[in-house]
Amino acid sequence: MSTGKFIVIEGMEGAGKSSAIAVIENTLNKQGIDYVNTREPGGTPLAESLRDMVKSVDHQEKLTVETELLLMYASRSQLLANKILPALAAGKWVIGDRHDLSSRAYQGGGRGFDEKIMNTIADITLKGFRPDITLYLDIDPHIGLSRAKARGDLDRIELEQMEFFIRVHNKYRELAAQDTSIVTVDAAQAMLQVHQDIEQAVIEFITKTDLD
Amino acid sequence: MSTGKFIVIEGMEGAGKSSAIAVIENTLNKQGIDYVNTREPGGTPLAESLRDMVKSVDHQEKLTVETELLLMYASRSQLLANKILPALAAGKWVIGDRHDLSSRAYQGGGRGFDEKIMNTIADITLKGFRPDITLYLDIDPHIGLSRAKARGDLDRIELEQMEFFIRVHNKYRELAAQDTSIVTVDAAQAMLQVHQDIEQAVIEFITKTDLD
Repeated sequence: MSTGKFIVIEGMEGAGKSSAIAVIENTLNKQGIDYVNTREPGGTPLAESLRDMVKSVDHQEKLTVETELLLMYASRSQLLANKILPALAAGKWVIGDRHDLSSRAYQGGGRGFDEKIMNTIADITLKGFRPDITLYLDIDPHIGLSRAKARGDLDRIELEQMEFFIRVHNKYRELAAQDTSIVTVDAAQAMLQVHQDIEQAVIEFITKTDLD
Repeated sequence: MSTGKFIVIEGMEGAGKSSAIAVIENTLNKQGIDYVNTREPGGTPLAESLRDMVKSVDHQEKLTVETELLLMYASRSQLLANKILPALAAGKWVIGDRHDLSSRAYQGGGRGFDEKIMNTIADITLKGFRPDITLYLDIDPHIGLSRAKARGDLDRIELEQMEFFIRVHNKYRELAAQDTSIVTVDAAQAMLQVHQDIEQAVIEFITKTDLD
């Protein structure tokens, strides 16, 4: 039995990650590929508690940016050990709603932690583990945030200022341009076109995987 | 108004930290020094939640050693920003039940994270902040653990094997020998002698502080 593959969907608030995940699920289903879903931060009972801490707006105390960074990676460590790695070892594919690229963009780009810090903490936590393919939904943060606001209540991070999201967006684009395992999808297109691009990218990845 | 001082008490299970803290409090009271108490992990509402996660024995999932490390420093970041630094700035002294030296001993020595990793994560979190004086209660782990067991239920970390505690103890002694701000107290002595040693160390520190 071959090990599964880890497909990650990335992008900012309002980029359309949820409907993109539905497209990926549908594509895997049509190919008869068994998969599990994860989300970050979260995805295990303990990691979900950490997610609540990071996202809650009504803390009795201010969360430091260092705590935010450390909790994101603690959540990732729990998810990797207890869910992602066991699923892959069992031959299942894993669809991840966010992974390390989010921390690179939000804590690295947004909060300003430098690359050396981000690499060190990622190395401690992931020990070189990486997604097999990442689909990055690229959206102008002004458009994305207005979509997210229309959707409802914003969490602690979504309440940041626009300059924060512009730094996040710039870091996403910078990292996506450097890494051939990241496929950038233009999420400003009509939804049907976005979904076709995602389906095509997943089918190409499956075909390439079958040939390996 | 001068800033306060940060006095930390360190040592393994059963070394006698609680009664040592009472001696420090008594000594500061006699000198009319205003102080607050902290403990690690914990000491703020959010950090206490992290303490529960780290110490609980009945998790639905295994805590990775990386998560343990990251949560210890997340707790420390919250405590530093929200309790230690404000108290010191207000001229109060802070008595800390454990601080960074515990992570160096337990996660560094016990879990085996190397010095480079420990330095990096400490630098991210503490940015060079250090206790003014640390009183390290040195006890043979066999004696300490048997005292702790007699006291009642052991937490997740206290349930480790003896080899773990021997590594923790060796790291404590190694670091205490290198750092002139750490005063080692022989906690195997009669309790009265231990308490006299602690009181004397605190009085010497106060005297030196007054002369500065």
